[in-house]
Amino acid sequence: MFFQQFCRGLPRGYQLSSRIFYDMQRATFASASGYDKGNSKDRSSTYTDNDTRRHSYVLATLTTVAGIAASPEPGSVIDGLPTYSLADVSKHKTSADGIWVTYKNGVYDISDYVKNHPGGNKILLASGGDIGPYWDMYGAHKQEEIFEMLEGMRIGNIVEVEQRKQGDTTDPYSNDPKRHPALIPSSVKPFNAEPPVSLLMQDYLTPNNLFFVRNHLPVPDVNLEKFRLDIEGIGASGKKVLTLPALKTVFKKKTVTTSLQCAGNRRSDMVKIKPVKGLNWGTAAISTAEWSGASLDDVLKYCGIDLDKVDCDHVQFEGMDRGPDGTTYGASIPIEMARMLKNDIVVAYQMNGVDIPRDHGFPLRIIIPGVVGARQVKWLNKIVLSKDESSSHWQQRDYKGFNSSVDWHNVDFSKSEAIQFLPVQSAICEPVDGQALDDNEEVTVRGYAWSGGGRGIFRVDVSADGGKTWITADIQPSNQSQYKAWAWVFWEATVPLPQGSSGKVELVCKACDSQYNVQPESVEGIWNLRGCLSNAWHRISVSIPTE
Amino acid sequence: MFFQQFCRGLPRGYQLSSRIFYDMQRATFASASGYDKGNSKDRSSTYTDNDTRRHSYVLATLTTVAGIAASPEPGSVIDGLPTYSLADVSKHKTSADGIWVTYKNGVYDISDYVKNHPGGNKILLASGGDIGPYWDMYGAHKQEEIFEMLEGMRIGNIVEVEQRKQGDTTDPYSNDPKRHPALIPSSVKPFNAEPPVSLLMQDYLTPNNLFFVRNHLPVPDVNLEKFRLDIEGIGASGKKVLTLPALKTVFKKKTVTTSLQCAGNRRSDMVKIKPVKGLNWGTAAISTAEWSGASLDDVLKYCGIDLDKVDCDHVQFEGMDRGPDGTTYGASIPIEMARMLKNDIVVAYQMNGVDIPRDHGFPLRIIIPGVVGARQVKWLNKIVLSKDESSSHWQQRDYKGFNSSVDWHNVDFSKSEAIQFLPVQSAICEPVDGQALDDNEEVTVRGYAWSGGGRGIFRVDVSADGGKTWITADIQPSNQSQYKAWAWVFWEATVPLPQGSSGKVELVCKACDSQYNVQPESVEGIWNLRGCLSNAWHRISVSIPTE
Repeated sequence: MFFQQFCRGLPRGYQLSSRIFYDMQRATFASASGYDKGNSKDRSSTYTDNDTRRHSYVLATLTTVAGIAASPEPGSVIDGLPTYSLADVSKHKTSADGIWVTYKNGVYDISDYVKNHPGGNKILLASGGDIGPYWDMYGAHKQEEIFEMLEGMRIGNIVEVEQRKQGDTTDPYSNDPKRHPALIPSSVKPFNAEPPVSLLMQDYLTPNNLFFVRNHLPVPDVNLEKFRLDIEGIGASGKKVLTLPALKTVFKKKTVTTSLQCAGNRRSDMVKIKPVKGLNWGTAAISTAEWSGASLDDVLKYCGIDLDKVDCDHVQFEGMDRGPDGTTYGASIPIEMARMLKNDIVVAYQMNGVDIPRDHGFPLRIIIPGVVGARQVKWLNKIVLSKDESSSHWQQRDYKGFNSSVDWHNVDFSKSEAIQFLPVQSAICEPVDGQALDDNEEVTVRGYAWSGGGRGIFRVDVSADGGKTWITADIQPSNQSQYKAWAWVFWEATVPLPQGSSGKVELVCKACDSQYNVQPESVEGIWNLRGCLSNAWHRISVSIPTE
Repeated sequence: MFFQQFCRGLPRGYQLSSRIFYDMQRATFASASGYDKGNSKDRSSTYTDNDTRRHSYVLATLTTVAGIAASPEPGSVIDGLPTYSLADVSKHKTSADGIWVTYKNGVYDISDYVKNHPGGNKILLASGGDIGPYWDMYGAHKQEEIFEMLEGMRIGNIVEVEQRKQGDTTDPYSNDPKRHPALIPSSVKPFNAEPPVSLLMQDYLTPNNLFFVRNHLPVPDVNLEKFRLDIEGIGASGKKVLTLPALKTVFKKKTVTTSLQCAGNRRSDMVKIKPVKGLNWGTAAISTAEWSGASLDDVLKYCGIDLDKVDCDHVQFEGMDRGPDGTTYGASIPIEMARMLKNDIVVAYQMNGVDIPRDHGFPLRIIIPGVVGARQVKWLNKIVLSKDESSSHWQQRDYKGFNSSVDWHNVDFSKSEAIQFLPVQSAICEPVDGQALDDNEEVTVRGYAWSGGGRGIFRVDVSADGGKTWITADIQPSNQSQYKAWAWVFWEATVPLPQGSSGKVELVCKACDSQYNVQPESVEGIWNLRGCLSNAWHRISVSIPTE
């Protein structure tokens, strides 16, 4: 009876068909009906040690369900099973080696189950490691039935608890926060990472622990007792100081939903043309969150400063992250931009409804919608109204654009303008590059599109023939104005596949924003030595079945 | 005078760009404007035998163009086709009977075409009768492609010649103003014309009589005594009425310097790929002026309307120009855009310090910086605050963008967004396409660049090898903010010429705006059936001396 209930209780579309589950069903049927004749053709007809071990848990659980004993906690140690180290588990990441995962102290062989996972290949993100953080993210997994199914794949225990080095005083990064294992690092110290592209569109608001991380320096450890935000410079008539509780209580809470994108998103496409200096980002150095805090305009007004009238040219922001030479991260925006965006610039203390995580600027981050991530200073503790741009390395000698004939021998950073608003962008998230499609008639393509400066997306076009013919994609409706569109859009198009092709198909997408600006056709025309602003038509290659 | 006629009579897209043409234009401008002071350094100051020979060729070509017409006149009798009377034709007015029209001596069955007519049902006004008078009004029809399409629907001849009154009093265009002879028309009724590209950069502010003209209907003859500006709709609590003297005296005079560009500027580049419907503009359907008047915000405030709070979605503008069926020109902008630009939207009565000339909207034109010319309604006499976009043909079924796979058989105008802000643009003005350069070492290239929505120009790149290597141009300094840059910039670059070339060189320019949006590389990627938004890299071909 238990397994019938189990089957009924499963989420819709959830297909259980691993060998062990087959065995479980068979055992149930047998025990319930008294029928226990083996089928000689059945692949369960021979048992290994592993099978026996798995049966032990099934039987234990069955016994439990029948009321004889209490159910063991999922992932708890089960006596009598083999013991593995985390290193042992990490060697099992492929179907050849077997695909293992851990959950708390449990070790599970999910090799046979993978193909039946309702979420598809995403389960492989956890292979050789801990599945817990993914289930923390996608909490729907935390159901009794799914725990039971997992335990059905149990093969052993781990006894070690992961020991991370804490308090290594010689490593400035030793106090960085723990990150979600799904994040794909492009550098570790400082930590920079993007979510897997296959998870990017799982939610419109990117979960905080999957939001791409762009750190330039170690993550500061902020003492809230001592934390102050200073506002100084032109119009401030001396330094004004605000505490975090003051920011939370004095000002009306303002929330904006905005996408942040790294200037180097999709740099990996540019590298294919010619090497550049910069982190090798894929297509997911972009994420979206709801940010809440006090509006910059309100904060400045409180300090006696009228943004529309103050006689300064730039608003500078400084962070608390600090390099070994004492450098702090800083950036600025022109006062004209602050005026244009003033109602929507937020001194934010919350990200998606909770305190901003340490990696994203705890306790304060300036959020400037439509602007490159690099100006949205994290760990913000100072705002300066000035005649000058920020003098920081990142404002003066880093995030700027050049033509493709400028290289390191002839570059003059003083001749180029700092990147602020980013240009129109789009990318295909599904299918992924290199994927083998099942169908050779048509393909459903999904992706994101976004443009800086509040420009909405008027149109996304998708091609399955390298850009010769185009289908206009459906854009998921939103209530954003086309001229104050701070957040990305998701889009989808079903595109016929070219017939008689050799098995390889190039899928392409391109977006057009509400200024009718378009993505450039090729990377060659926009290549630049820092690999920023990589927004050419996004092209991926997929294979289709041939007969 | 000969050269004036020559300029006007040239087929569009016919770019004369040799030294001789430069001289011709200069002579024209000089004689037309009364300006004829020789500059001793001017490259036209001496003539050679070669010049004289080239003159002979130009004259011969003109004779050919004027005298020998190879293809039959549209609407002429075609032997062997059935003959119909006008009475016969008049019985075919419905889809049941077939929809016929005549043009001169031709009879055409347009039944199948009606649904694809870009102007919608208006074509039915001519059903059963002569389409000629409508095409006299909507002169854009008089293009070779459209004549060819018409002749493709030919079913017979009429032998009677319809006697229509052709006196000046019945020609709705007979009262159009006299124009500067240097203007190069792309259509005469309605009048549409651009200045010669070599005169475009003569002045930063385009002289009023050289400013490109884009008329959709006859120029109205406004009686100033009776002229009123109505403000109505949401928030206006009844109709408010303002006289011209009131506009000039009640409100503070506000001046903005802004470039206006037609959505079809550089359409002639798009036509090279595949035919489009629209006036065959060159690179000069863009001009810049200083406009003065009352700010829209002030005018609305005077009428009790607060732009930031009024509960409407669009601001509509109506003109006094009127078609034969009573149509008036109209357009609208979203309220969000009106809020963004409000300090700079001007109800203008002056252009470059004088009353706005009749061709440009006398007595009133709405000036909306950064926005396509088509929304900057001339002969303005009504402003309506509404929940709806303008229902005009030009807002709903004309100035919109599509991808290159959308053609007249599958276009759905309701699925695309009206063009408002225009994308980043640049073009080479000197040398001109086809010009023979004197030097084979280097060339000085000059041009303009502009982007919509106030985005300034961060960079212009120039190439003399078709886009393989680039020189960053010098941009003429201005005091415009990079985020409220309403007017164009002029730029210049001296570029080394590739050595060992065969005598032909491709010069290319491309601009990058303050959002780091770039011009797309090729026209193919942005081709659209209306030929709007033609902003690919601008390429011209010049010849250099070989030895």
